[in-house]
Order: sequence, then C-alpha cells, then structure tokens
Amino acid sequence: MNQQPYDILIKSATILTLDASNTIIPSGAMAIKNNVIVDLGPEEKFAHHQAKVTIDGSHQVLMPGLVNAHTHAAMTLFRGFADDIPLEPWLNKIWPMEMRFATPENVQKASTLAFIEMIRAGITTAADMYWHADSTNEAAFITGLRLVNGIGLIDTVGKADAQNKETLVRRFIETHMGHSRIHPCVQVHSTYTVSQESLKLAHRLALDYRLPLITHASETRTEVQTLLSRTGKTPIGYLESLGMLHPGIVLVHCVHLQEDEIEQLSQKGVAVIHCPESNLKLGSGVAPIPALLKNGVTLGLGTDGAASNNDLDLWGEMRTAALIHKGISEDPTVVTATEVLRMATLGGARALGLDHLIGSLEIGKRADAITVSLSSAHLVPQYDLISHLVYAAKSSDVRNVIIDGNLVLHEGTLLTVDEERIKTEMKVLATKIAGFYSDRVYHQP
Amino acid sequence: MNQQPYDILIKSATILTLDASNTIIPSGAMAIKNNVIVDLGPEEKFAHHQAKVTIDGSHQVLMPGLVNAHTHAAMTLFRGFADDIPLEPWLNKIWPMEMRFATPENVQKASTLAFIEMIRAGITTAADMYWHADSTNEAAFITGLRLVNGIGLIDTVGKADAQNKETLVRRFIETHMGHSRIHPCVQVHSTYTVSQESLKLAHRLALDYRLPLITHASETRTEVQTLLSRTGKTPIGYLESLGMLHPGIVLVHCVHLQEDEIEQLSQKGVAVIHCPESNLKLGSGVAPIPALLKNGVTLGLGTDGAASNNDLDLWGEMRTAALIHKGISEDPTVVTATEVLRMATLGGARALGLDHLIGSLEIGKRADAITVSLSSAHLVPQYDLISHLVYAAKSSDVRNVIIDGNLVLHEGTLLTVDEERIKTEMKVLATKIAGFYSDRVYHQP
Repeated sequence: MNQQPYDILIKSATILTLDASNTIIPSGAMAIKNNVIVDLGPEEKFAHHQAKVTIDGSHQVLMPGLVNAHTHAAMTLFRGFADDIPLEPWLNKIWPMEMRFATPENVQKASTLAFIEMIRAGITTAADMYWHADSTNEAAFITGLRLVNGIGLIDTVGKADAQNKETLVRRFIETHMGHSRIHPCVQVHSTYTVSQESLKLAHRLALDYRLPLITHASETRTEVQTLLSRTGKTPIGYLESLGMLHPGIVLVHCVHLQEDEIEQLSQKGVAVIHCPESNLKLGSGVAPIPALLKNGVTLGLGTDGAASNNDLDLWGEMRTAALIHKGISEDPTVVTATEVLRMATLGGARALGLDHLIGSLEIGKRADAITVSLSSAHLVPQYDLISHLVYAAKSSDVRNVIIDGNLVLHEGTLLTVDEERIKTEMKVLATKIAGFYSDRVYHQP
Repeated sequence: MNQQPYDILIKSATILTLDASNTIIPSGAMAIKNNVIVDLGPEEKFAHHQAKVTIDGSHQVLMPGLVNAHTHAAMTLFRGFADDIPLEPWLNKIWPMEMRFATPENVQKASTLAFIEMIRAGITTAADMYWHADSTNEAAFITGLRLVNGIGLIDTVGKADAQNKETLVRRFIETHMGHSRIHPCVQVHSTYTVSQESLKLAHRLALDYRLPLITHASETRTEVQTLLSRTGKTPIGYLESLGMLHPGIVLVHCVHLQEDEIEQLSQKGVAVIHCPESNLKLGSGVAPIPALLKNGVTLGLGTDGAASNNDLDLWGEMRTAALIHKGISEDPTVVTATEVLRMATLGGARALGLDHLIGSLEIGKRADAITVSLSSAHLVPQYDLISHLVYAAKSSDVRNVIIDGNLVLHEGTLLTVDEERIKTEMKVLATKIAGFYSDRVYHQP
C-alpha cells in the first residue's frame, strides 16, 4: 500500500489487448500513469492499488481506441449536402462551397464537431487531410483526440512560391515532431491532381524527417484512366517509377488495382487505407481487400469525410468491411471479424507509423483505450467477443474514452469541450451555407 | 375545448409522413385515439387540444415505424454463434443446436429479446418465420410489436398427417384473422426444401384466406443450381409453372435472378424482400435491387435472423442497401435514400399486404410511429432530412415508439416487459447452448 497511486485504474472489465498474443482477460484491470499504460492483468493483482480516478468496467470490454486512418474532418460542414448524385455534380456542388466556407475558423469548428463524433464512437486517433492544418490541430488539442496531420503539398507557381511552401511544411513538421498527441506526416493529394515536382518534394520531405507520406491512389476507374492516358502508367506504376513505393508510403483507397500491383504493394511494404463506405457511396467500387490481406499488406480502416459517408463511425465501417467482401466474392470466410478489428486498431496504427505507441493495450504503450458496454439487448447473448464487436456492437455502446492518458469521455459524458455550443454554431453555419448555395443556383444563367 | 381528449399527442416534431405525397411538416403534431391516427398537421392546429399523454417531439422527427419484412426472431439464440465460416459448416453447427434448444419456451424467450431489440431500433412491425409460431406470437403480445406470422408448411408423411397439418394452419389463421396486432400469413420455406404438394397446399390456403404467401427464393447460387438439376427450372420458373406468381406472393432474398425474371416479377405483381446484410454475411451475393426498382417491383427490407447479421437493426440495413448497390454498379445515383426509406416503411407494408393499415403517417391509419432525435453530434448539421435518416441516423437515435396506439418505448425506456430479466435468462440459456456444443464437439469420433 506504499505505492504511488495510479492516475486512472479501470477495473472489472473484460480486457481485449489486441496485441500480437490477442489475449482476452475475462476479469481484468489496467493502470495508467501520465499518458502511459503502466500495468494490466487479472483483477486480483490490483486489489490493493489506489488511483485518482477509478472506472468500473463491469459488463464492459476494455480495448484499444479505434484508429480512423483516413478522414477529412472539416467536411462535416457538408454532411449530407450532396447525396445520390454522380461524382462530377457532387464535386461541382461541394467545391465552390469549400472555397467560400472552409475558412480557418470554420475548419476548426467543423473539425471540432467531427472529433466529438469520433470520440463518442470510440475513435482515439484520426489521420486527417484538409486545408488549414493548424485549425484542425487546434480542434484535436481542445477535444483531446490524437491526430496525424500534415500540410498537403500542392502545386506552386515559380521558385519563390515553391521555397515558401517547403518552408511552411518544414516549419509545421518541426513544430509538431515529438508532440505527445499531434503527429506530423507528409501529405500530397494524389498523382493525378499534383505535378511530379510536388510529388518529389513530398517524397524528399518524408524521407528527410522519416515520416509517413500519405496520398490518395487508384480511388476511381476514371483516375486510373486519366493517369494512364497522361503518363502511360497507373497511379501505382507512376509512384513506382518515381521510387515512391516503400515502407512509410500510405496509399488511401486502392480500389482499382491491377493484379500484379497487389503483390507489388506487399513486396514494397506499402500500407493501404480501406474506406469501404465512401467508396460505395461515391460509386467508386470495392477495394480488393481479400487479396491485399492474403498478400500480407498492412491495412488501416478509414471513414473518409462526412460528405461521402455520412457519419464518422468506425463501427459501421468495420461491419461494412467485414460484410461486403464476403458478398462480392460469395465466400463467407474472407475478411474475418478478427482481421477487420485489427485493421481498425493496430493495422491503422502500423500504417501511420504509430504502432510502437498505440493500436493495442500493452504495458509501456500510450494510454489510448475505450470501454464498450456489452449490456444492450443487441449484444445478448454473447458467444464470441470479437464477432460481437464487429457484427453487433454500435458506436452508442462506447462508454469511456481515454486518450494519451486523459479521460475524455466518462460514462457517456464528454469532458473536454462544450458540445452543445459547437453544435449550435455548426447549425448556424449550415444555414448560411444552404442560403448561399440556393442564391447561387438561383442566380446562375 | 369541449372535444374529448386524445390518447396520445406528439407535439413540436418535424413530421415525415412518407405517404404518397411525401410531406414534411417542419413543426407539426399528431393525435392518436385508440389505435388510430386521428389527426396530424401543423402545430398551431393542436394548440387547444388535450391528451392523456403528450410527447414533446422537439428536435425530433416523427415518422412511421419501420417494417422489418423478414426475420427469424428466435435466432437471437445463436447471435454470433457461427461466424466467418462457409454455409455448410454453418448449417451443421446451427441445425443440431436448433433441434435441441428451439423449444416453445426458448423460442418465446429469444423472440422477446429480438422484439425488444427491434422496438428499441424503431421497428414497429416484423414478419417472422420460425417454428412454434404461437410462442413468437406470445412474444409479440407481451412486447407490443406488430407481427406478421404463420405456421410454415412442411412436408408431411401420409394423408392423415397432411390433413392434420392443414387443420393446424387453418386454425392458426382463423384464430388470428382480424386481430389488431397479430396478422396471419401463409409460409413455406422454399422450393428446394419442400415438396410440390406442400407448395400447392400453401398456395391454396393463401388464396382461400386472401393472405400473403411468404417463401425464400433464389437466395444462393447453389439453391438455383439444385432446383435446375432437379426440375429443369429456376425457383422463379418453378413457382411460375405452379401458377404461384401473382400479387400476394412474397419472395424473400431473390439474389440470383435471371434478367427476364426481374421483368416477370414486375409484371406478375410479386413482392420481393431484400435482406442485404444477411446475403453479404453468408456469402450469398447481392440482389439486383437497381433493376428491381427500375421495373417497379414492390420491395421490402429485412434483417433476416440474428445468426446471419448479427443485429436486428433496420437503420444499418437501410444504410447498407443504399451503399452497396452504388459501389457494385459504380453508379452513385442508384438506390437513393428515398427509395431505401420507402422499402423500410410503406414498401414493406405493401409487400406484406398491410399498406392500408401501416407504413405511412396518414389520418385513419393505425398509429405505428416513432420519434428519432436529431440532436446527436453525428446528425449535425442537417441539409436533407431523408439523406440524414438513411446515411447518418442510428438505432440509438430512436426515442419514442408507438405501436397500434400503445406507447411502447418512452424517451428510451421500454414500458412493456422486464428487459433485464429477459437478458439474464438469455445469458443463462446461451451458457447451456455453448456447453452442450463443446461437449458434442469433444465427444465426436
């Protein structure tokens, strides 16, 4: 009884470590000091320990927080703004609105709302890609989320502009490297929207700082065709020709891959982020996940933005990922619940270069953990915990969320920001957006 | 002020009628007397009305209850019992357990749990198919759900047995015809599991009583092959040859249809029930819903049983139905949110022959209605209500459920049965099932 008290002790939970051993501890406890998991094991071990905060995990599973490996958080601005229409009108409807309304202030507001939604759904880490990265960082700061973020490299005009851009990116990276919750990365939109120079600059910066380089690749059939007619190469082939396929490269979507490209991604150690619901909703197609899994490619799972989903719920995404490939291949054994849960935790962490810190519950790792209630009618009875989490659990079952050692959601109550105020502000903003849009449509020749 | 008070008055809600006019009343009220919607319209109209129970619908949408047009409720017994395995081992694992554990008592218990889950998710009507139909009826009685149910026609041995079976079915139908919440139908499992005699008997009974005849059809490729090699006809062709394609016939699944069969179903006025998640999870495939919609076939939406889903959540099913066909056809305009919401309400009601009673909010129809909160972070901001309901709302947003004029769920609290007791009993039962199964596996030669 002479030990120092823990900061947080979660007791009486079913612990699902999701580490390499995939241990399930039926009645366990986990102790946190500062931002680190300092102990975990069977309940008895902790009988005489004190903690500043104790959480009762009875009838709940304690597991790693989910990793949303690809999103555009600020696009909650346009949740449901343009549904059930083809891609071109979708872009034509959304882009002018983004140009006008995605100001730094609004990006912070919309990202804050997105991160509230994510935290409530048990997401503890998100990898974001949008303009005004500092605003998104601020939203992560105040909500308590762990964020992987970068300034997207875009094409510049002239040498001075290019140097200026590089300076900005270097400053962003150097400011955040070593931060406990904001993890810099290098980003570039895609091979078809950005010049070879920008791709090369992004690559050089990623290598310089040993950071992940994240880009969209082979999302749509049109994208692949465009690049083929422009360069004679597919997006994957083009990246290969630039020496840009190796560990640390993170390709988002990969819906339209040629057969040899799957093997290639595996051999080169490239990670892929699967965004099944966005790919379905935009009519892009279905990524060849069974083949990527078979080839041992590191896979993460992402919601993409709320304009193409329309929620930011990784439970739904897990379920869709586990279901859709079975139906399409007419084989109920492909993409198992265990594989999907791995994608949404350690897989995503590994893809983002953070698996030494997060993605599983292990002593010494950062304390990013959630508890999920198993009490609701839709979770009774229970035969297989992992099946249950993937096929039956919902975001509404998440009760507690701890990120980097901070209790962020406690028994369903968000502790970090004024959720009602953010929601009210977003409603006001959406009214402006809708008004501006109808004026614009009305005045079009 | 001298009118008789209403039984229930829901005020200040956004009303989505989902009738033919598809009216949205931004701030409306709806009045219920006995089991009937007696009035609905703008708020002001109800300013001076009294009611025994008044529900505040602020920041909520009031809409028709969802119709789960195909389920096997008692299979909550086996929720997550056999996942990620091929169909044959799945059947071999589940069938012996059903033989032993699907007793009348357990069917009632498991169906009660299923109906609690459904009510919590805003389902007000379910069409069930299982053994011990009286037990399922009892579960619907006590939970408050509206149920379409029948005794499944199976093959019998000898004339006396056949007459006995027919008598049982007739008695079941005659007992329940005219009941306000239990609606009898005629059921037969499928063309490949039941003899021509049983199919014909089912057909005769359906015509006799003018009731819907529900059967599984063309769920898997194997089923179609089996029937082809046995009769030279597909399931649809076989039913056609027996004169069994006409209004009132309800075919569940229809995943593997030939092109001319889609037109045939349309011309003959046959209804189809789409169970997208079950079809995906069992690796059966994806039903040609865009083509069925284009041909004007009446479509309902079903969860199927919890052993192949694993929840009974029509919000997830709507979302999956709206997403998957877009991805597969690489066309984001097919199967719109409006079409899917229709399937889950009036479409299902029409398929089951109940659209004169339920499926939309209209004066004179039965009071089957739900309120859905629009306040959660994942529902902010809002541009398009129907998009919002299909792509972003969740079962956890359902706040109030009224079935046949009875308030069954009130602000998230179930009023009809002791939910905790049922859950506890199901957990005990599941422990027995798991124990029996491992003994059996252990003792197998």
